[in-house]
Amino acid sequence: MNSPVQQLDLRTRAEEVWARYRADLDAVERELTANLTSEVALVGEVARYVLGGGGKRFRPLVLAASARLAGAAPDGQPCPEVATLGAVVEYIHTATLLHDDVVDDGDIRRGQSAARTLWGNAGSVLVGDYLYARALAMSVSLGRLPVVAALTSAVEEMSEGEVFQLSVCGDAGLAEAAYLRIVELKTASLIRTAAQVGGMLGQISETQLAALVEYGRLMGIAFQVADDALDYQGDAEVFGKALGGDLKDGKITLPLLYALTRCSGAERARLESIIAHDDVACGDDLAFVLRVMRDHGALEDAGNRAREFSARAGQVLCQAFPDGPHRAALLELAEYVVERDR
Amino acid sequence: MNSPVQQLDLRTRAEEVWARYRADLDAVERELTANLTSEVALVGEVARYVLGGGGKRFRPLVLAASARLAGAAPDGQPCPEVATLGAVVEYIHTATLLHDDVVDDGDIRRGQSAARTLWGNAGSVLVGDYLYARALAMSVSLGRLPVVAALTSAVEEMSEGEVFQLSVCGDAGLAEAAYLRIVELKTASLIRTAAQVGGMLGQISETQLAALVEYGRLMGIAFQVADDALDYQGDAEVFGKALGGDLKDGKITLPLLYALTRCSGAERARLESIIAHDDVACGDDLAFVLRVMRDHGALEDAGNRAREFSARAGQVLCQAFPDGPHRAALLELAEYVVERDR
Repeated sequence: MNSPVQQLDLRTRAEEVWARYRADLDAVERELTANLTSEVALVGEVARYVLGGGGKRFRPLVLAASARLAGAAPDGQPCPEVATLGAVVEYIHTATLLHDDVVDDGDIRRGQSAARTLWGNAGSVLVGDYLYARALAMSVSLGRLPVVAALTSAVEEMSEGEVFQLSVCGDAGLAEAAYLRIVELKTASLIRTAAQVGGMLGQISETQLAALVEYGRLMGIAFQVADDALDYQGDAEVFGKALGGDLKDGKITLPLLYALTRCSGAERARLESIIAHDDVACGDDLAFVLRVMRDHGALEDAGNRAREFSARAGQVLCQAFPDGPHRAALLELAEYVVERDR
Repeated sequence: MNSPVQQLDLRTRAEEVWARYRADLDAVERELTANLTSEVALVGEVARYVLGGGGKRFRPLVLAASARLAGAAPDGQPCPEVATLGAVVEYIHTATLLHDDVVDDGDIRRGQSAARTLWGNAGSVLVGDYLYARALAMSVSLGRLPVVAALTSAVEEMSEGEVFQLSVCGDAGLAEAAYLRIVELKTASLIRTAAQVGGMLGQISETQLAALVEYGRLMGIAFQVADDALDYQGDAEVFGKALGGDLKDGKITLPLLYALTRCSGAERARLESIIAHDDVACGDDLAFVLRVMRDHGALEDAGNRAREFSARAGQVLCQAFPDGPHRAALLELAEYVVERDR
């Protein structure tokens, strides 16, 4: 973890990036509202609740910065396609949150009641389906098949990643490569696609577009690996969810994976027993897991692994694009995702 | 209900329609298998289980007959786009079944264990998401934006219909128009779209395409209204689900709606109390509901309402297309959906 002063500096710089794309993000907000046009009142009600739940609009931000980097519109001028596709990626992200809550039996999301506690699994599943379909329908309306293809691939990969994760739930022998593939599928695919479809709106070479895609993929992996480390570090109050939630769900993430491969036989036996337990891990168990992680530098190294991906993301971008405000913004974001404390 | 002899004749004629499009449907089967290419083994496992669950491939059949009616390929020659889009609509239909089981807490599907009883809600939700995305990605690969647009609209409408149904669950005051709108959204939209995208593969006038769309919409409504009547008539063993399942789920369908509006005040009070009950309706309750329906001709009139939609579907088709084997097949299907006994 960084010092409080470093965190304050990081947060200020991140806020500056968000502020730089405020006009684009405001346009995205308008699209998010304007496209919830269902004749069925409950659809809008559930969707508005989840969309209003304090999301940072991280994926629309990545899309806007990528589009501007690619020259989709002159600085200072609006770009309607950024607004539409920004809403599309946020709808898709929101749909995954709704379905993830059902998958994980989650009751709390960003510190609020999850939609499923208010409208049941039924409401979460169905409004998630609606948002997926609405998002893809909006992307079709732009008339660009490659954009639609990228988005459908992302949805496909995200669900594959989630099923992959489900199929190795509680598997203490999970390899790091498999873990990273899950992360790439379930999380990085949409962030990568946000960068990609943003880039498609501009006029850049195939090489530059490929670099933007690779930046998105690597930064997306960094984002999730850092998130998995934060799950063992976060403060429940600010992070909006309980510490060790992944452990409780039987999800083997990088810190636990490192702890498992580095600890003693006796420690490993207890770790495996804790993982195998279906119920909520008790305080003692969590304290034990955290102690083993600390003893073996598991959290620190997971954080460093995230930083490696983030650094590679930055390198790929710098090799393909000259210095400028939008490249700088994307580099800031790559740093932000691995250094944030929540 | 028809006599056993009539049912036998109907079934024979229906089988002849299925047989006429056997080559197309076999090609669809190959696409259904070939496109389950996920690197994640569990995705294929769940998807194959559900796809192998005895579905009649009704939507691919409607699509194939519509495409052939529109002249998508000469009779006797294969049409690869029919095979692809046939698999697309069947994947979408399968995804809705997976999600419906979660929404309804369903344990049995077509007489077998529902996927969710084997892989949990998580497996059903996520593999459903995968199939939606896979289907739309396949449709994108054909390079026809209007086809993709029609399919995304259908997915949107289906989820809206399901949420609409959810929002009026247990509402004994539901109007027939609202019931029919739910049916149109949740069921008819995909059948309509199967006819529509089939028609788009051929060379027909705008007027003829519109007629095919309207045929699909009306026949799709007839299909669901008949299905809702069968829910109070079906034999659990052959139909693969228990009698009165909709009543148990608090779904107000046309037979119940007719019973509610025609019965005495005392009967209505008991009906409302049965509907309001969250638990499984007991045998006495179901017997009472069936008796009230019989006394007021509710099932018969619901069946007749289905027949009206079916007849209108046939009229629309006959006004727009000359007589021929594919028009005849679509007319047979419109009759089949309202006269079948399961």
